[in-house]
Amino acid sequence: MNRPSNRQANQLRPIKITRHYTKHAEGSVLVEFGDTKVICTVSVESGIPRFLKGSGQGWLTAEYGMLPRSTGERMQRESAKGKQSGRTQEIQRLIGRSLRAALDLKKLGENTLHIDCDVIQADGGTRTASITGATVALVDALSVMKERGLIKSDPFKHFIAAVSVGIYQGEAVLDLDYLEDSKAETDLNVVMTDAGGFIEVQGTAEGAPFQSDELNSMLALAKQGVEQIFTLQKQALADQ
Amino acid sequence: MNRPSNRQANQLRPIKITRHYTKHAEGSVLVEFGDTKVICTVSVESGIPRFLKGSGQGWLTAEYGMLPRSTGERMQRESAKGKQSGRTQEIQRLIGRSLRAALDLKKLGENTLHIDCDVIQADGGTRTASITGATVALVDALSVMKERGLIKSDPFKHFIAAVSVGIYQGEAVLDLDYLEDSKAETDLNVVMTDAGGFIEVQGTAEGAPFQSDELNSMLALAKQGVEQIFTLQKQALADQ
Amino acid sequence: MNRPSNRQANQLRPIKITRHYTKHAEGSVLVEFGDTKVICTVSVESGIPRFLKGSGQGWLTAEYGMLPRSTGERMQRESAKGKQSGRTQEIQRLIGRSLRAALDLKKLGENTLHIDCDVIQADGGTRTASITGATVALVDALSVMKERGLIKSDPFKHFIAAVSVGIYQGEAVLDLDYLEDSKAETDLNVVMTDAGGFIEVQGTAEGAPFQSDELNSMLALAKQGVEQIFTLQKQALADQ
Amino acid sequence: MNRPSNRQANQLRPIKITRHYTKHAEGSVLVEFGDTKVICTVSVESGIPRFLKGSGQGWLTAEYGMLPRSTGERMQRESAKGKQSGRTQEIQRLIGRSLRAALDLKKLGENTLHIDCDVIQADGGTRTASITGATVALVDALSVMKERGLIKSDPFKHFIAAVSVGIYQGEAVLDLDYLEDSKAETDLNVVMTDAGGFIEVQGTAEGAPFQSDELNSMLALAKQGVEQIFTLQKQALADQ
Amino acid sequence: MNRPSNRQANQLRPIKITRHYTKHAEGSVLVEFGDTKVICTVSVESGIPRFLKGSGQGWLTAEYGMLPRSTGERMQRESAKGKQSGRTQEIQRLIGRSLRAALDLKKLGENTLHIDCDVIQADGGTRTASITGATVALVDALSVMKERGLIKSDPFKHFIAAVSVGIYQGEAVLDLDYLEDSKAETDLNVVMTDAGGFIEVQGTAEGAPFQSDELNSMLALAKQGVEQIFTLQKQALADQ
Amino acid sequence: MNRPSNRQANQLRPIKITRHYTKHAEGSVLVEFGDTKVICTVSVESGIPRFLKGSGQGWLTAEYGMLPRSTGERMQRESAKGKQSGRTQEIQRLIGRSLRAALDLKKLGENTLHIDCDVIQADGGTRTASITGATVALVDALSVMKERGLIKSDPFKHFIAAVSVGIYQGEAVLDLDYLEDSKAETDLNVVMTDAGGFIEVQGTAEGAPFQSDELNSMLALAKQGVEQIFTLQKQALADQ
Repeated sequence: MNRPSNRQANQLRPIKITRHYTKHAEGSVLVEFGDTKVICTVSVESGIPRFLKGSGQGWLTAEYGMLPRSTGERMQRESAKGKQSGRTQEIQRLIGRSLRAALDLKKLGENTLHIDCDVIQADGGTRTASITGATVALVDALSVMKERGLIKSDPFKHFIAAVSVGIYQGEAVLDLDYLEDSKAETDLNVVMTDAGGFIEVQGTAEGAPFQSDELNSMLALAKQGVEQIFTLQKQALADQ
Repeated sequence: MNRPSNRQANQLRPIKITRHYTKHAEGSVLVEFGDTKVICTVSVESGIPRFLKGSGQGWLTAEYGMLPRSTGERMQRESAKGKQSGRTQEIQRLIGRSLRAALDLKKLGENTLHIDCDVIQADGGTRTASITGATVALVDALSVMKERGLIKSDPFKHFIAAVSVGIYQGEAVLDLDYLEDSKAETDLNVVMTDAGGFIEVQGTAEGAPFQSDELNSMLALAKQGVEQIFTLQKQALADQ
Repeated sequence: MNRPSNRQANQLRPIKITRHYTKHAEGSVLVEFGDTKVICTVSVESGIPRFLKGSGQGWLTAEYGMLPRSTGERMQRESAKGKQSGRTQEIQRLIGRSLRAALDLKKLGENTLHIDCDVIQADGGTRTASITGATVALVDALSVMKERGLIKSDPFKHFIAAVSVGIYQGEAVLDLDYLEDSKAETDLNVVMTDAGGFIEVQGTAEGAPFQSDELNSMLALAKQGVEQIFTLQKQALADQ
Repeated sequence: MNRPSNRQANQLRPIKITRHYTKHAEGSVLVEFGDTKVICTVSVESGIPRFLKGSGQGWLTAEYGMLPRSTGERMQRESAKGKQSGRTQEIQRLIGRSLRAALDLKKLGENTLHIDCDVIQADGGTRTASITGATVALVDALSVMKERGLIKSDPFKHFIAAVSVGIYQGEAVLDLDYLEDSKAETDLNVVMTDAGGFIEVQGTAEGAPFQSDELNSMLALAKQGVEQIFTLQKQALADQ
Repeated sequence: MNRPSNRQANQLRPIKITRHYTKHAEGSVLVEFGDTKVICTVSVESGIPRFLKGSGQGWLTAEYGMLPRSTGERMQRESAKGKQSGRTQEIQRLIGRSLRAALDLKKLGENTLHIDCDVIQADGGTRTASITGATVALVDALSVMKERGLIKSDPFKHFIAAVSVGIYQGEAVLDLDYLEDSKAETDLNVVMTDAGGFIEVQGTAEGAPFQSDELNSMLALAKQGVEQIFTLQKQALADQ
Repeated sequence: MNRPSNRQANQLRPIKITRHYTKHAEGSVLVEFGDTKVICTVSVESGIPRFLKGSGQGWLTAEYGMLPRSTGERMQRESAKGKQSGRTQEIQRLIGRSLRAALDLKKLGENTLHIDCDVIQADGGTRTASITGATVALVDALSVMKERGLIKSDPFKHFIAAVSVGIYQGEAVLDLDYLEDSKAETDLNVVMTDAGGFIEVQGTAEGAPFQSDELNSMLALAKQGVEQIFTLQKQALADQ
């Protein structure tokens, strides 16, 4: 099997995490998985949504967007269309659930964290890059909250990272880029904690149905991938 | 472990499939998974969406809705709010992908099938009931198309069925109802073909992350469940 | 004159009222006028709209919808279109005004009743069936409110029923089905109380203008019709 | 009984019809029913809506709006809210049906007439004033169409006029102004042709239900009213 | 150079200001710049927008609309389209900023003034006519506020008037009508105070870029124009 | 006078223009005016809007957006709100008019250029930075069009650059950053060609009205500023 990217089946794209990418947000990261580039910011807001009033816990919510020409063909701008696509909503719900899993919301106090993941350039795997980058931005934002006295104890429970895997030409491969993704028979997105647990597993047969053994191969590859990503996240946070 | 429903861990709720439930649609099924009741219709429309022009293939698309008081507390009507929720869009995209997997779209000709899944009463598992019921309605609609001479060869490739599984009090259980679902630690929706392949696997850690062995237990339980459901689908279609 | 339905000019379609049709709503009725089938639910909500604050009275509001394939040709789903049609709004305003006429809103306390009328299958007369069915669901919901101690005295003033009449081939006929309605020269919807008063009279010349004597014939026929419907409503409520 | 307006029960408000009120529209009328003032324009557009393609007939459609401060309290601007209210839609559907009844649409050719009724100042009866004024503007627009050679034979079938009647302090009264309307027990809008037929009859019990004899009194009063209005319409058109 | 309107380069169209044009609004003016006719109303509302809470100042906001057939070709109704165009928003923001410049918002107290400018007939220069007319309506509304005891001291700082100028066939001309505007190379809208200061200057090269000397000629012409307009505003307010 | 930025009155912020910033667009520039950072892309699409059919010319249109946390406080995402603000529309209309002035649209053929200006980080002057950066991206996109044979002759007429000027503490200053802008008495945006003509002049008195001499000082400063910017645009294009 030859991947269009000439990578080994279990080889990630070069991943780069740039912290403090923009100056206003409490957490701001540019994450790159090869040619996929996403700005992930975390904004701290005092107060919680109405449905949590009186619960004594905080909240985290996520939004996702793509610049109209982040893709090969220009997409219509969602604000001009007047609504977000189903795909956008699906992805931002996934990011929100994944990042909430990183936190003990009780320890967050009556604060809301807004995650914004905006794709500057897309080449496959934007949702997994978003989750990976937003986790680092979240750690930075929590540091700011501590400095400002907004939280007393640390709500951070564990690192979260995500990667895609797929079946390409009958074989499981890691971290698909756009060319690979568009030809893969199966696409599986995996979100895990650095303690080895699964947060989300979302697999879709694009072409033929996939079998149990294929699922197992993909999950094994994903585990290898996220372990490398956890290392990269922690290195990025060790700097400065 | 005691399930609130007093069922065995591997026990489905009573499933009932009523064909020809309404009179106008080419396929119309009322599907019941216990107290969850969904009307699934298939409507045949001549022509295909713009993005498929010239492809020589047909299309299938799905929409999902809940009656405002299908749930314990009345939800706001989506047509009055002016938009569908992210959850609604996520579910209808899942139904669409799953049902398209049942078909050879080339053999459908330049026709579009509209799947409508409308929840009359909700008690957990509405998306898996929808996929299960819509598959039966799809078979009926294809029969109508053959009678009307709209298709020459049969586009149906295999049966599709779906079921939810979860981790409840530390144990894998099959086909969660609302009470169980709202307390489960993990929720996994599985869509399969009657040839044993996976079409979709969507697992979410609601509370604690889940481990590989838990994922395997849930997948095994799901396989047992869908096999029983395939039998029920085929029995329903054998009648009359 | 031969009605397409072979009914006598003054003959209603078979009317069937099934109470407790779904389990969550305080009142839930499936009403059938021949092949027209509507689920009518009543949901009790604590509190009143802003414009009534301080008035010491309650409120009742109604919404109406049709499943996309309740009709001969599939209609676009209103939640997907992002708005309700003028026809939908016209009908739900009619249902709301009609049902409010059944109540002494002062005795309702600071509660809001939400009527939802959802057409499962359409064959003409969906608005009159909705009003007829919702009245029965309203009685059931008020019983629940009494049991829960939400109201002290009974706000129910009188039964409300509705029926359509029309001029078909020059003659007044009762309770038009879709085939008759689409060819009628005039269409008149009449909403009455069981004390014999009119709540709403809405007549439209679809073809030729109608004359006073035709209006009188139609009104007389409508009175006969609603009297039979009041009997059916009361029988349904007498059961169990 | 004393009407707030000190009019006799069967007395219309002063009605004034000013043609050629604005310069661009093919028909343009300012109609005044007392303090109620509505600009009614008719715009001629070549072509017909998609649903009429191939029918060989024309179409007429109506829209209605109120300036935000045409009323005692400023209303929110509908274009700013992003949607038209149910009341607006109900009224513009009524105007459209009523004005279509004035025409033989076959003789209109493949042209669409857009009626716009915009309330400059409201004091009750805006929908009946709209229909009355739009009919005169329609006659003017048809003259322009003849001059431009857009129609060969005259599509105009009969005049259309509308008036409201109501039960006020137990007595039927004609042409209610806002003060009267807000206290009336019943409100009935009647649209008629100058040949004496009914086009629309829309009665609503605002307070107590109304009885057959009250309905008859109101209809008789409405007939008197529209006859006077037909005279005023024809006088307005006789000028110049 | 010959202007299509045969006016001198520095000649305004006939300007007419009719106060108390409609009866409900605190200020209501019909302003006419030749064939351009705009109804400008000012509505007084108690309270201020959320973003000013606690500021101790009042607010003024403006909305702008055109009747669908105020123009040569009928435009789509913005409330039916579901949104205001960019042009509409641009104009209403301009009107709002301009009129706020007339006031000391601190002296307005916690009140909000709503300016509504609705174009009845358009022939170029609707935004400058709107600002000119709304200023007169504002003075009337402030008088009403004083009478009602809503303000203690006068918030009015100076008169505001606006006029358009342009380069037409190479020469600066004042107050362009539609025919002139559609052929002008440059279009400049100028808003000034009667103390001679600029509030807004908005110039756009429609065809060729404009030079400094052309800009100066246009500004000089605009100053002449607004001086005449201030006189007309003050005359209108002197009456009665 | 001391500017918060410690710059001289006539001193621009450091301006940086990075070409080929993202890989998919035909033209892609990151433009920085100090801390203001905007990604400007140009996308080439075959075909023209409906209103230009048969005109034989091309079109250019622009859209503008801000990442939610590009600002000091997070703004609501416009795609989530379902509409673009008036400010957004005002700015994107300005960008579109300005960039169209750079082109001979006849020479563009039946192609549409989409300009997308997305603010990554905001610190004042985002609209002038957008116009400046988009002009460079436009030159790059036209080169790609020539290479692909989409245009025969060069549609580019002249460079376009924009800068803001204002009155700060009574003195004219160039290129205001956010801190300066929020305290300036007047804000003027100037768009010019490298031949010295004005394309747009938009001045607003934020506090006190501005006088002719102040306007002249600001225009003189703007001219100096855009001349430096033209040099920077040309240097950026000379590289590579």
